[in-house]
Amino acid sequence: MKTLKLAILGYGNAGRAYGKLLVEKMPEIIKKHNTEVKVAAIVTKTKGTLIEENGIDLAKAETELADFGKFRDGTSQGAMEVAETVDYDVLVELTPLEIFSGQPAISHIQAALKRGKHVISANKGPIAWAFRELRDLAAENGCLFYYETTVMDGAPVFNLADEALLMCKVTEIRGILNSTTNFILGELEKGVAYEDAIEEGKRRGFVEADPAMDVEGWDAAAKIAALMNVLMDAGTTPADIDRKGIEGITAAQVESARERGKAIKLLCGGIIENGKTKGYVKPEEIGRGDIFASIEGTSSVVSITTDLMGTVSIVEHGPEIEQTAYGIFSDTMRVLKNSC
Amino acid sequence: MKTLKLAILGYGNAGRAYGKLLVEKMPEIIKKHNTEVKVAAIVTKTKGTLIEENGIDLAKAETELADFGKFRDGTSQGAMEVAETVDYDVLVELTPLEIFSGQPAISHIQAALKRGKHVISANKGPIAWAFRELRDLAAENGCLFYYETTVMDGAPVFNLADEALLMCKVTEIRGILNSTTNFILGELEKGVAYEDAIEEGKRRGFVEADPAMDVEGWDAAAKIAALMNVLMDAGTTPADIDRKGIEGITAAQVESARERGKAIKLLCGGIIENGKTKGYVKPEEIGRGDIFASIEGTSSVVSITTDLMGTVSIVEHGPEIEQTAYGIFSDTMRVLKNSC
Repeated sequence: MKTLKLAILGYGNAGRAYGKLLVEKMPEIIKKHNTEVKVAAIVTKTKGTLIEENGIDLAKAETELADFGKFRDGTSQGAMEVAETVDYDVLVELTPLEIFSGQPAISHIQAALKRGKHVISANKGPIAWAFRELRDLAAENGCLFYYETTVMDGAPVFNLADEALLMCKVTEIRGILNSTTNFILGELEKGVAYEDAIEEGKRRGFVEADPAMDVEGWDAAAKIAALMNVLMDAGTTPADIDRKGIEGITAAQVESARERGKAIKLLCGGIIENGKTKGYVKPEEIGRGDIFASIEGTSSVVSITTDLMGTVSIVEHGPEIEQTAYGIFSDTMRVLKNSC
Repeated sequence: MKTLKLAILGYGNAGRAYGKLLVEKMPEIIKKHNTEVKVAAIVTKTKGTLIEENGIDLAKAETELADFGKFRDGTSQGAMEVAETVDYDVLVELTPLEIFSGQPAISHIQAALKRGKHVISANKGPIAWAFRELRDLAAENGCLFYYETTVMDGAPVFNLADEALLMCKVTEIRGILNSTTNFILGELEKGVAYEDAIEEGKRRGFVEADPAMDVEGWDAAAKIAALMNVLMDAGTTPADIDRKGIEGITAAQVESARERGKAIKLLCGGIIENGKTKGYVKPEEIGRGDIFASIEGTSSVVSITTDLMGTVSIVEHGPEIEQTAYGIFSDTMRVLKNSC
C-alpha cells in the first residue's frame, strides 16, 4: 500500500470538517486507490502546530481542539517553516485570506511547488493575485495544483472547466458569489434593517465580525479575479477589478426595485472588450424571471459563456461548512487519481 | 502522427454540425493531441452511406448534402453492417431515437464494444434502456463509452459526475429536461393557445412533427431514466418511470397558477425510497422565486443532490444545434485524451 502525506496549513472550521471527512472516508480511499492518506503536519496560528511524519491521529487532534481549544503537545513551528522542511507530498493551504495581497499563502505555495510538492489551496488569495505564476511554477515542477473551493465551496466550477470546456474559449463570466451581500440584500427586501441583517448573518455564522470586505465588494472582486485568471488566463488581480459594493444601496432603492418586479443583486463578471479582459463587481437590478434573481441567501451562481458550448450556469444551493470540506476533499481525491 | 478513425451512424442536423466542427478544429486537434481524426464511415438511412477508410472529405460530403440532398457516390450499406465490419476506432451513434426500445442503437453499440471499439452515443435510447449492460460490456472490453449529449446537449452533466462527484453518493435528481413541453407551458402562460404554441415550436424547429412523445412525458422519462442509470446505478428504463405528461393541463390551470405566483413546469426526478430508486415525470406548480421557474423555452436544468456536495444545479441556456454538436465533439476530445 502506498502513502500520500499531507501538510495542512490552517485548521479552522473548514479544515476540521475536512479532517473529519478524511477519517470517515479512509477505508473507502484505501480500497479505491490502494493508498493511505496521512497528515504529516497541521499548522495553526494560535492553537499550536503538530508534526508527526508517520501520521497525526486526526480523531485525537479533533478531540483536543474541541475539549481544550488547542493541541496539547503543539509546537510553535510556523507555516513557512513547515512548507519548507517537513516531509510531505501535498501542501493543503487553508490559512486565512489576506485579501489585499494573497500573502503569505502565495509564499507557502511557492515553497511547496519549488520542492516538487503538489498543492491544494482553499485560499483564494493566491488564485486571485498570482495564479499565472503559480500555475507555471507547478507545471515546471511537474506538480498538481488544485483550488476547487476558492470560488464556490464544493461546487465543481474549476473541475468542470478543466474537464469539460475542452477546446472552448470562455468569452464571458457572470456570477453572484458573495453570501454576505446576497443575504443582506435579501433581508432589506423583506423590510429588515441593514444593521439587523448584519447581526442576523453574524449570528448564523456567515457574516464576518467586520463585514467591510464583503459589503465593499472585495470578496466578490477576489472571486471574479480568480475565475478570470483560471478560465480566461486574464492575469488580473482584485485591485484591477472595477469594483462597486452595496454600501450605497438604501432600503428605498431595494423597495423601489421590488415594486418594479426586480431584485438588486451584487453581480460580478468578466468580459472581453477590444481583446482585453475586464472585470467588474456592481449592484444590478435583475428581473424576477431571471435565474440570477432566484439566488437567495448563501446560495451562489456562476454563468460561463463560451464560443462552442453556449452559456451554462452552475448553482450551489445553501452550502454549509461540510461542502467547503468536500471541495478540499475532492481536490485530494483528484491528486490521488492524477498523481499515480 | 497518430490517427483516430470514426464511424458515424446517422448524419442529421446535429451530425452535420459535428462534422463541420471537426473540420474547423482539426488543426487545433492535431496540434494538441498529435492525432488526426478521420471519418472512415458515415451511414444515413435515406441519403446513402460513405465508406472511405483513409478518411472521408467532410467538406465535400457537406456540400453534396447541401446541394443534392444526398451523397453522390453513396452506397446502401446499413448501420449494423458498418458497425460490425468497417475499420474504425470510435463508433459515433447518432441514429434517431426509438423511444420504446432504444433499438437498433443498442445493437450498434454492442457490436462496436464487442470489437473493442470506443463508443460515443448522442442517442439517449441505449442509456435509458440498457446502460448497465453497455457500461459493463465497455469495461470488459477496455473501451471508453461517452454519452454527454443525451440529456443536456453540450452542457457537461455526465462529465461533471465522472470527474467531480468523487466519492459522493447521489441521493436525488430533479430536472426540467424537455424543451417542447417547457415551451408550450410558457406560451400557455402568455395566453397563446395550445395548438398555436405547437405550430410556433414546429416553425422554430424544436417541436417534432408528432409532439406526442414530448407532450406525454416519454422524452423526459427517457432522460431521467438515463440520469438515474448513470448517476444512481438504477438499472431502470423509461417504462419504469411514473409518468404523467402535460396533455391534461388546461390554459385555465396555467392562468390560475400564474395568479397565485406560480408556474406549471413538467418536472422529472429520481429519488431513493426505502433503499430503492424511483423515477417520475409530472407537471408541478413551482413558486416564482425558485430557480426552476426561471427555466424558460428550450433552456433546461438538472439539480443533483449528494451526501457530501449538497445540491448543485446545472442550467443550459437556450441551446442551439451547435451545442449538441459540441457535446459530441467534447466526447471525441475525451476519447483522444483518455485513450492514449
